[in-house]
Amino acid sequence: MASSQWSDLDPSKVTITPATTLKPLPKPEDLDNAWGKVFTDHMLLCEHDPVAGWGAPRIVPYGPLSLDPASACFQYAPTAFEGTKAFLSPSGTPRLFRPDMNMARLARSCARVALPPFDGAALLELIKIMVSLERRWIPAGKGYSLYVRPTMMGTRVGLGVAASETALLYIILCPTGKYFPKDRTTTSLLASNDTIRSWPGGTGGHKLALNYSPCFAPQRIAASKGYEQNLWLLGDDQHVTEAGQMNFFAVFKKPDGVLEVTTNPLDGTILPGVTRDSVLKLVEAESKSLLPGTVLRAVERTITIKELVESSELVEMFGAGTAAVIAPISRVGYDGKDVLREEGVVSRALWKRITEIQMGEVEHPWSVQCETTVPGLSIS
Amino acid sequence: MASSQWSDLDPSKVTITPATTLKPLPKPEDLDNAWGKVFTDHMLLCEHDPVAGWGAPRIVPYGPLSLDPASACFQYAPTAFEGTKAFLSPSGTPRLFRPDMNMARLARSCARVALPPFDGAALLELIKIMVSLERRWIPAGKGYSLYVRPTMMGTRVGLGVAASETALLYIILCPTGKYFPKDRTTTSLLASNDTIRSWPGGTGGHKLALNYSPCFAPQRIAASKGYEQNLWLLGDDQHVTEAGQMNFFAVFKKPDGVLEVTTNPLDGTILPGVTRDSVLKLVEAESKSLLPGTVLRAVERTITIKELVESSELVEMFGAGTAAVIAPISRVGYDGKDVLREEGVVSRALWKRITEIQMGEVEHPWSVQCETTVPGLSIS
Repeated sequence: MASSQWSDLDPSKVTITPATTLKPLPKPEDLDNAWGKVFTDHMLLCEHDPVAGWGAPRIVPYGPLSLDPASACFQYAPTAFEGTKAFLSPSGTPRLFRPDMNMARLARSCARVALPPFDGAALLELIKIMVSLERRWIPAGKGYSLYVRPTMMGTRVGLGVAASETALLYIILCPTGKYFPKDRTTTSLLASNDTIRSWPGGTGGHKLALNYSPCFAPQRIAASKGYEQNLWLLGDDQHVTEAGQMNFFAVFKKPDGVLEVTTNPLDGTILPGVTRDSVLKLVEAESKSLLPGTVLRAVERTITIKELVESSELVEMFGAGTAAVIAPISRVGYDGKDVLREEGVVSRALWKRITEIQMGEVEHPWSVQCETTVPGLSIS
Repeated sequence: MASSQWSDLDPSKVTITPATTLKPLPKPEDLDNAWGKVFTDHMLLCEHDPVAGWGAPRIVPYGPLSLDPASACFQYAPTAFEGTKAFLSPSGTPRLFRPDMNMARLARSCARVALPPFDGAALLELIKIMVSLERRWIPAGKGYSLYVRPTMMGTRVGLGVAASETALLYIILCPTGKYFPKDRTTTSLLASNDTIRSWPGGTGGHKLALNYSPCFAPQRIAASKGYEQNLWLLGDDQHVTEAGQMNFFAVFKKPDGVLEVTTNPLDGTILPGVTRDSVLKLVEAESKSLLPGTVLRAVERTITIKELVESSELVEMFGAGTAAVIAPISRVGYDGKDVLREEGVVSRALWKRITEIQMGEVEHPWSVQCETTVPGLSIS
């Protein structure tokens, strides 16, 4: 391949230093209670310099990063990341799910914290290279995948508060099972209005490291009260923004029998989730076939906590995200009371439909074969 | 000293690995345009383990940190830090300025992102040890100091979103001159209402790494329009929260001649600055002596941008922070127009008073001699 295909970040320049010994593969069942704790043999590193631009990507054995203690990523958190999954299709080919959306979102996230731009197609190519190299790590079976975490962070050394055009892009991969512990198929949320996850003009619409740690303490409070995650509220009307680290969906059964699959609009305070978008698009495109005998309608509008508590039309709730895919919400705590709903037919149908597309069990343009155009790469 | 003086984080357990060669000291004048870029010979590291608690603090040569790429500090930004300065008093003794306030604030910041607690007196002792060891690095002369940056960050390895009780505390030090470039004695601010720095229920009242990178892009916009920093606004009333990375002060001359030194109250959206508190306390305690012939009054209330634009009582504006101490604001851009004020008598008097206390030129309980109670420590 001519390197001229790539403008700056250049997958054709990738070098590989293979690990001298490969790790034993974990058993798939051991992954179910250890989400995101086991990593593959290699990682990809690529540095950006404000003058020279992106350097040659290097695949090296998975191991620690060495960074100056005054690096921006430690001191001021200019860090964006993505989460996408590689699935093992029935034919044995790795597949990615709508990875172009992740690339576009990462570019937007990077711009929000003044990190350098990159060619999304080139990064996707690097991800494909990594997935291909580490394909032995993709666990077989529905519910299992190889989670891919591209991360970009500012590495400028200095305590002055300013943008970091010196940056490190890295890709790590971990085989994953179920996001929530094995014995639970639904999740519970405590509605939180003392801590606000995001606000207009803030960063909640971007996938940034900095959005997550402010949720740790509220998450502990929720856990102490018997809830797994927080339901984040915002504004005088106390409307829902997100559910833990997922987009929030409520399904309302209207008097005419239509099921309205409802979520917050992309107003800048919520993450534009790939799974969220997939739910809305599937409900629109398959409004009469997704649940035979029932008409579905996708609705984007704010949902207040008052409505969740009072509505007799509320039939189910679920969270949508890359890690959990579709997570039925059985319980929402608010003001000392619980809103309870069973796992519903909509979340079940959506989980089935999305995962069959992800796994390549059916043909769908969202499922992308993970073939690289860079020849000659292999871990010997 | 008996180690029982310390509950957990224990300065008496500190070990030292001295640098084999010491760096040449920079000339003080070279520091004026390179704020936060030169670091001393050593750094202090101390790890926290959720079971074993705080380990023995280690002083080692300044150098890179080695951390797993899936560490919480990279992925979810649970990082709190402090900034305090050591000054060289006329007698040659290093002095710190109200360091107990920094210790208390760091504890609050750590709790906000679920980092482990620590003994503030023990951390202050570790800072004193580091300042004492690195005292050759404290530049002499007013306007110069050794900036101390204690940082605590979560180092739990794993991609699951959860609190990190595994943590690294480190202290780095850098000799500093003027925060703003040498040829400017005042700063200029562009009022920003499309990007919101902080929000009720958010993290703006804590000193967290994650508060800073969202300001990088707006700062670039401000710079492109000829302003050095942003004036952060919030709410329907468009009131001022902070000025760049400083607390904002406006001085209003009332009809009775009293000068009201006014700043936003600590409502959770602004940093509880040590310099901010010092300004308010000095204005209260020395209301008639700080500016002979003039009565000053400290006022904590919100100030709207409309008031800054329209008020005929507005006589001066300044920012207050550890790095810049007192930075007169000569220009605020809003809605295509500029609010212009000269550097005023109040900011000049406050700068003089605070820096003479910091330098130990006058006796004041805020200035703390930097003597350690841990004997036998020296860099050979």
